[in-house]
Amino acid sequence: MKPSSIATAIDILKQRFGDQLSTAMSVRQHHSHTTTQIKSQLPDAVLFVKSTDDVAAAVMICRDHQCPIIPFGVGSSLEGHVNAPNGGISIDMNAMDRVLAVHEADLDAVVQPGVTRESLNNYLRDTGLFFPIDPGANASLGGMAATRASGTNAVRYGTMKDNILALEAVMADGRVIRTGTRAKKSSAGYDLTRLLIGSEGTLGLITELTLKLHGIPEAIAGGICSFPSIEAACNTVINTIQYGVPVARIELLDAAQVRACNLYSGLDLPEDTLLLLEFHGTERGVREQSEMFGEIAADYTSHAFKWTTDQEERAKLWKARHDAYWAALALVPGGVGMSTDVCVPISRLAECVEETRRDIDASGIIAPIVGHVGDGNFHTLPLALPDDTAAWTRIKAFAGRLSERAIAMGGTCTGEHGIGQGKAGYLRQELGPAVDVMMAVKQALDPHDILNPGKLFSK
Amino acid sequence: MKPSSIATAIDILKQRFGDQLSTAMSVRQHHSHTTTQIKSQLPDAVLFVKSTDDVAAAVMICRDHQCPIIPFGVGSSLEGHVNAPNGGISIDMNAMDRVLAVHEADLDAVVQPGVTRESLNNYLRDTGLFFPIDPGANASLGGMAATRASGTNAVRYGTMKDNILALEAVMADGRVIRTGTRAKKSSAGYDLTRLLIGSEGTLGLITELTLKLHGIPEAIAGGICSFPSIEAACNTVINTIQYGVPVARIELLDAAQVRACNLYSGLDLPEDTLLLLEFHGTERGVREQSEMFGEIAADYTSHAFKWTTDQEERAKLWKARHDAYWAALALVPGGVGMSTDVCVPISRLAECVEETRRDIDASGIIAPIVGHVGDGNFHTLPLALPDDTAAWTRIKAFAGRLSERAIAMGGTCTGEHGIGQGKAGYLRQELGPAVDVMMAVKQALDPHDILNPGKLFSK
Repeated sequence: MKPSSIATAIDILKQRFGDQLSTAMSVRQHHSHTTTQIKSQLPDAVLFVKSTDDVAAAVMICRDHQCPIIPFGVGSSLEGHVNAPNGGISIDMNAMDRVLAVHEADLDAVVQPGVTRESLNNYLRDTGLFFPIDPGANASLGGMAATRASGTNAVRYGTMKDNILALEAVMADGRVIRTGTRAKKSSAGYDLTRLLIGSEGTLGLITELTLKLHGIPEAIAGGICSFPSIEAACNTVINTIQYGVPVARIELLDAAQVRACNLYSGLDLPEDTLLLLEFHGTERGVREQSEMFGEIAADYTSHAFKWTTDQEERAKLWKARHDAYWAALALVPGGVGMSTDVCVPISRLAECVEETRRDIDASGIIAPIVGHVGDGNFHTLPLALPDDTAAWTRIKAFAGRLSERAIAMGGTCTGEHGIGQGKAGYLRQELGPAVDVMMAVKQALDPHDILNPGKLFSK
Repeated sequence: MKPSSIATAIDILKQRFGDQLSTAMSVRQHHSHTTTQIKSQLPDAVLFVKSTDDVAAAVMICRDHQCPIIPFGVGSSLEGHVNAPNGGISIDMNAMDRVLAVHEADLDAVVQPGVTRESLNNYLRDTGLFFPIDPGANASLGGMAATRASGTNAVRYGTMKDNILALEAVMADGRVIRTGTRAKKSSAGYDLTRLLIGSEGTLGLITELTLKLHGIPEAIAGGICSFPSIEAACNTVINTIQYGVPVARIELLDAAQVRACNLYSGLDLPEDTLLLLEFHGTERGVREQSEMFGEIAADYTSHAFKWTTDQEERAKLWKARHDAYWAALALVPGGVGMSTDVCVPISRLAECVEETRRDIDASGIIAPIVGHVGDGNFHTLPLALPDDTAAWTRIKAFAGRLSERAIAMGGTCTGEHGIGQGKAGYLRQELGPAVDVMMAVKQALDPHDILNPGKLFSK
């Protein structure tokens, strides 16, 4: 890449877009803030787009001058996706924030990529419908699609791949495509919708999403239960799912995380493995589900399962989970975290979490564990002061072993965060020659590697 | 394609595979029997493979001689997928029929592509688990993946795309890849699993599938209800789904189909629109669901909703649906059918079905309607004697208008059968320039177009 071609692209973009383009340092810094320990790599400029036409025009200019393009939502990704290792243009999609249509009878909505999940759910409030995927952060829906995000209720509602009917996208040559229709299912050709979901901005820029919506449940029950071991908790989870209880959320906090929550939130939970549950359904349905779970759990713990359908009481029971991230961060005042993200077959979950806990202890690092255990997905949050290089060396080695452990157990190095820059080395370890097929697809659709270069594939 | 190169490939395959290769006319005919009005196009030979190694070896030989390869399961596809328009080798996967592993705790199974859905469910019988996708025919699971099949219970369990964790596939250059792990969810790279599902054998040959399983429900309730109009039935469906009733099957028969069923099966159902339902859950759960449905239906019909959890009684109530295909065929003794397969947003379903019914009547053809209406998917089965060319001209014109009608309503020309040869002309009408992106992917992964040529894309 000749730097001059980026400069030329910026000149032409400036003529075309005027004030929509910024080269201010603070703007460039904001658009490469990784929220993690991954070092920022600044884009040369940031373009604030307002429409699909804007995106297509910008891509065509960048294509002509082989200028890298990095799509930007709210910047909440965790694997360096917004970084610009080769420079280029960050394309900020936040002004594309309109809900274009809500089809209540069809349970779908058409939105622009800058709409966030919270703003969509606020918009939907009076319809009795909601969009379920909840990755924690108030992420943009375009970004959530690009990283195949999920979160706490994926066990019931699936991930972004399961909740998108169709996408509009601008491809590397500036072509605008629509990957599907509003039909609930289709066998019409290659599944370009799913090909773009999780492609991390490397195949196309998502400019519109047709999302599946769900009815807000009549009743929600929430509850918590402590367990004497990670294994007891995991066996309860396995039985619950195998028995067909349609649990909406089932989260695990390990003892270290529970201790952190007791300290931070003034709770007095037993400092043991904790499961937090949520059930969605009718009043009678959630009562039945809660009772069934209670019976299953009783085989594995002497602690009672406490549950309620009252919203305030639910919030109290779930307080440990809601504060978990802040409680963890408070363990190292002034510290930053590195979020790991493995996912394994649920039969291996107890073993994987326990080995990981032993590894944490043996490594002398601080790293509480929180898991979306219904899916076998869990995060550790190793913490250290930013300049504690010795700690970061240990943490990175630990994170590498964790990815390798999950892959060896038939799982993945990333359940929901994506590969980005942080995990590029593990993609091939996990999927072997399939990565060559991915690269062939990339080469076919973006021959000059202008779309989010340096992500997904290691050089 | 030089014919001589096919002959050379066959010679080499013969040396390598001996009796596993057949050039007998009856075998070639069987492997290009389309089950529909689409004319058979015979392969030059049929290879009966026993392993992934066999497939990889055969693909490498065919690659070297640019010999077309047509994967073959049980031959139940409906869009000419098994035809060999350019000749070549049909690769019969039926001997790859082993269930390689069942992981009960993980709710997954690893199977070879020749396992059929019924044989898998027989195999699973004692585990309390089942594989839900039910396209009607006892299809091979490899074929079901290749066409992104679904069927009557997709409204609850999704389609093949939602029930496969990972695939092993042999690509056009003979490379064997594995597209995912047994983890329930993953954000690791491009979704090659979903890229292969629905690719109709044009990107790779599926040699192993890791499938999601589900717990056999504790109770199943079945029921039927007649409606004064298609619109009344469709509005009942919309309300049922919007209200969040987790219906497992919801099928529509139009009055013409009900009449055919009364005649064929000796029933005395009101000759009106009929909905047939199935609910899966606990005893209490299915009772609650059935009662909720009954209340919703009461707003749209004066007919009662009859339901039961008794297995024999259920079978009686559902008899019309089980016999629907044979009842339809019996309308034209000696005739054959052509299955159409549109899917529209559910809000347009009543309109689409009604317009289609008027079109059938105006066209002077015989074509009952059956729909998986929870998904907005319905089939007509236009029937005529094989040599009634005038009728087939009218039927093909009708089928074309039906595809165009669905596309114009924001739907698809194929909900679950695939494009194959039959619908190649409508793919571009439906998805426009996205088809060029599909062709670029095809070109990158199969540059010599040896994998199932002449399918999906029109020349």
